[in-house]
Amino acid sequence: MARHGILIVLSGPSGTGKGTICKELLAQNENLHYSISATTRSARPGEVNGVNYWFVAPDEFRTMVEQDELLEWAEVYGNCYGTPRRWVSDMLWSGHDVVLEIDTQGAMQIKKKFPQGVFVFIIPPSLKELEDRIVKRGADSPAVIAKRLGCVQGELGFATQYDYAVVNDEVATATAKIAAIIVAEKCRMERNSDLIEAIGKRGSID
Amino acid sequence: MARHGILIVLSGPSGTGKGTICKELLAQNENLHYSISATTRSARPGEVNGVNYWFVAPDEFRTMVEQDELLEWAEVYGNCYGTPRRWVSDMLWSGHDVVLEIDTQGAMQIKKKFPQGVFVFIIPPSLKELEDRIVKRGADSPAVIAKRLGCVQGELGFATQYDYAVVNDEVATATAKIAAIIVAEKCRMERNSDLIEAIGKRGSID
Repeated sequence: MARHGILIVLSGPSGTGKGTICKELLAQNENLHYSISATTRSARPGEVNGVNYWFVAPDEFRTMVEQDELLEWAEVYGNCYGTPRRWVSDMLWSGHDVVLEIDTQGAMQIKKKFPQGVFVFIIPPSLKELEDRIVKRGADSPAVIAKRLGCVQGELGFATQYDYAVVNDEVATATAKIAAIIVAEKCRMERNSDLIEAIGKRGSID
Repeated sequence: MARHGILIVLSGPSGTGKGTICKELLAQNENLHYSISATTRSARPGEVNGVNYWFVAPDEFRTMVEQDELLEWAEVYGNCYGTPRRWVSDMLWSGHDVVLEIDTQGAMQIKKKFPQGVFVFIIPPSLKELEDRIVKRGADSPAVIAKRLGCVQGELGFATQYDYAVVNDEVATATAKIAAIIVAEKCRMERNSDLIEAIGKRGSID
């Protein structure tokens, strides 16, 4: 009996290290695939359509939004980015797992459209640690850092809508926990009631 | 911040191998302890009170039942057996995890009294396999084997009340899945909302 894959949504405040955890998970798990976003932004040199992004024209993107073909979308600096529902569904249907790493607002959009996803909130061990990470990353100005940290309280407010909380005190430990969550979720009764039915009716799960 | 342990209830039809999985889990996991039953049966040579069982007098057992001190209990061949709530609570409170292996009726009793437990239904890969295992075990007469197999359909009917389904096609694989379930359950948001609160209020989870 072929089993469907699951969608794992890694989310949490900026600077919690969800990107690093996501890369580690993908490196360790052959059956796990990263969700490829659709974007209206132009491809940069070296970027490949269907690998880095699905590059689409603005009116094509608009059609996807109108036809509810995106699990979530957002506009950032004049470009649109979104998660195509079809690609995710096809992967899950063929038994692959899909992971995506996204901010809390995107995660909450996905939860509305795809509640059967597994929503993991990555927590920094402390706000001080979070600040250190954002500063160390060196990508943001002091004003942007202050703004990011100001958003954290609001983002923590979404946490209880997630299924799991994983503290990122160490990348290896946090990654192992999320790998365990994937294994456990595949065992959840609501994803396996067909097995129980099969053994009751046909005497075997095959 | 000290975290409480969790109670794992391994259950399923007779012959699914839950006993073997339970032993494997205990051997691999130092923080996991086997729930010690109270019994009115006399100690056999070599059995130690507080290790193999809590040996109690029948009127003491009756008092435990009356005062709701047992998470479940049953009478088997004139002797009573039960799971003391106090011992389990003390272990969980001090951060240890507790596992117990029990039939579906016992598991359903525990679920009523301790719904925060984690209930795992162990499935045999097939009814044929189940029959082979019970026959191979050599502990039962053909009449008892027929009766056990006749009960399986009824026991499968309880399955959907469990949190997880684990197929025991191979002991090592099934044990690894349950170990992952323990890790994942500790990450569930409802067990960690205090972490989110702590970081929001005090800036740290410690």
